[in-house]
Amino acid sequence: MNGVRVAGVGLTRFGSHPERTGRDLFAEAAAGAFTDAGVDRGAVEELNVGNFMGAIAEHQGHQAPLLAEAAGVRCPATRYESACASAGVAVREAVRTIRSGEADVVLAGGTERMTVLDTEAATDGLAIAADDLFEVRAGVTFPGAYALMARAYFEAYGGGRRELAHVASKNHANAVPNEYAQYRREVSVEEALDAPPVATPLHLYDACPITDGASALVLVSDEYAAANGLDAPVSVTGTGQGTDRMALADRTDLARTPAATDAATTAYDDANLGPADVDLAEVHDCFTIAEVLAIESLGLADPGEGIGAARDGRTTADGDIPVNLSGGLKAKGHPVGATGGSQIAELTRLLRGDHPNSGHVPDAEVGVAHNAGGTVASAVVHVLEVRG
Amino acid sequence: MNGVRVAGVGLTRFGSHPERTGRDLFAEAAAGAFTDAGVDRGAVEELNVGNFMGAIAEHQGHQAPLLAEAAGVRCPATRYESACASAGVAVREAVRTIRSGEADVVLAGGTERMTVLDTEAATDGLAIAADDLFEVRAGVTFPGAYALMARAYFEAYGGGRRELAHVASKNHANAVPNEYAQYRREVSVEEALDAPPVATPLHLYDACPITDGASALVLVSDEYAAANGLDAPVSVTGTGQGTDRMALADRTDLARTPAATDAATTAYDDANLGPADVDLAEVHDCFTIAEVLAIESLGLADPGEGIGAARDGRTTADGDIPVNLSGGLKAKGHPVGATGGSQIAELTRLLRGDHPNSGHVPDAEVGVAHNAGGTVASAVVHVLEVRG
Repeated sequence: MNGVRVAGVGLTRFGSHPERTGRDLFAEAAAGAFTDAGVDRGAVEELNVGNFMGAIAEHQGHQAPLLAEAAGVRCPATRYESACASAGVAVREAVRTIRSGEADVVLAGGTERMTVLDTEAATDGLAIAADDLFEVRAGVTFPGAYALMARAYFEAYGGGRRELAHVASKNHANAVPNEYAQYRREVSVEEALDAPPVATPLHLYDACPITDGASALVLVSDEYAAANGLDAPVSVTGTGQGTDRMALADRTDLARTPAATDAATTAYDDANLGPADVDLAEVHDCFTIAEVLAIESLGLADPGEGIGAARDGRTTADGDIPVNLSGGLKAKGHPVGATGGSQIAELTRLLRGDHPNSGHVPDAEVGVAHNAGGTVASAVVHVLEVRG
Repeated sequence: MNGVRVAGVGLTRFGSHPERTGRDLFAEAAAGAFTDAGVDRGAVEELNVGNFMGAIAEHQGHQAPLLAEAAGVRCPATRYESACASAGVAVREAVRTIRSGEADVVLAGGTERMTVLDTEAATDGLAIAADDLFEVRAGVTFPGAYALMARAYFEAYGGGRRELAHVASKNHANAVPNEYAQYRREVSVEEALDAPPVATPLHLYDACPITDGASALVLVSDEYAAANGLDAPVSVTGTGQGTDRMALADRTDLARTPAATDAATTAYDDANLGPADVDLAEVHDCFTIAEVLAIESLGLADPGEGIGAARDGRTTADGDIPVNLSGGLKAKGHPVGATGGSQIAELTRLLRGDHPNSGHVPDAEVGVAHNAGGTVASAVVHVLEVRG
């Protein structure tokens, strides 16, 4: 099995880009990834891209050929859609393609244009990630669904709004130095607590924003990196994917996310390591409660212990295991189909030492990325390691 | 590299199912595939599904978890979207997954619900497979786009409406005995010529219909088939994928489909055979001209020779290389995200000898499936062989 390296990463600034299309954003991210990698775009053998709601936001499906054009590559190109885990799945298949020897160089990432929709239309568009027949038509929106999960968690394990506010405050603080982040400003715990409710117990700062943006990764085989003298110290050593029932009503426990647990177990086994080896993580905090569920699924906190991790400083920038040093979906932003690639790009920068927040993790060698779709009906976990 | 066998196939009847959802259709197809394979659904390790316009027709994205539920499997599940080639790409990735040893049993296929939309809405929904900025906003629809391709072909090589009418008539004749086909009635060449125009030179019988339907394949490794004593004589021995520029205006020659040529070349090389070895083909005849372009890309006819193939009886049921013995998209129907899986299901039945049209190809050993997206900006080709 061939080893896989992250040769280069590219990102757009996350935020509102009202005059730019999804393809235009991906072109920028891809160009950045090629420059960062020192790999010519002509070397790319396959393209895997995530996109979630292009059919709604841009009246555009069949994005793979368009994004190949935007990236300037000509090769088989495939779009993946697993709601908010779209790019995570695209990256995972790229990793498997290189491992199997099918290709040595794959461009993977994703793009999403969302701010072209008003809040109502965006909420309705995002709702296609839930079960239309049994959730959406009954009035469930994503803030509502995660509010149900937060209530279930509080009932099962305790904790409350104050602990979630610590998650928001932590991630906003992490975003301040990140040049790609949508919201580069601090939010205090009290400010988060005082914000208006969205779906009780979730208030404004418990929710990630609507975001435009793109991500791109040049993934290469170990052999290709060596043969071409690439400076690519970060390897993808583990990948895992999990799938759960779609509708919350069909789940046995709303305070757990077994799809992510399955994905993490597979990824750790694949990398031949475990949660105790992890130095930092980027997790899918579409809502603050989602970060809590994520770190428990990753085994970075025991069930019921995740809620206090930010409050107690265990997951803050200088904690034992910093979580979402990028700012997370919460403050860096969440262009849905791009997020899974962004997480791996940010982890790569953090592990290489060229991220504005790398100073918080100078000795980090193992990072984990956790990307979830919907209410974690889909999940993808990747393990990244510095391999020198 | 592990060999891949088609252990079982399942299809719904293609047509109008006004009271059934896409997931319900897929449940039927999957159940049929498990029964046909003699494989328990609990053995499935991964699910790959194609779906194109669920976001528009059913307000439903993130279909992979839903379709896993519908099929009764619990495993990593991934949705693929490459317009009309969605299921072809899903099958291709399943083949690569088994080959690499990542899994021994993968369920692959697709589903689409379309007749819930009226003609105008369906035409608008299908248009997301073209370039929204540079084609759709200028008024291009798919009948219009393929009409441009037909005109370019006629200008380059000759031929006209009568030759296309022979394609329609042939495929309608093939669909008559097919229990899964949408239109099981003969259409004469004169009837096709007399039908009203849709986009000149394409008339009504040059276009495939709007269709609901699903397809499913149980794909297994050679080792799994042997260990479990499966009767699975058909192997997938070649797979290839190609990508072209999206907009017709960016192509150099509208009378050629290089993405399909690339896919075919890769698939033939993969299977270590060539066009001369092919006994029958299922090709993507979303319009009659598309069948002509397809057989030329597959090397089954030289450039300029494809237009006369149906007229001259070379591709008819008792011709040298029967094309679309299923009835094709033209008469069997085209539930977009399911079509690529349906083609392989039909080829498998034809090669096994249990298709109503198997009597036309009693000695066939090699079949080719050609699945295209949009105006062939995406293409997937598979080679199937009887391996005893």
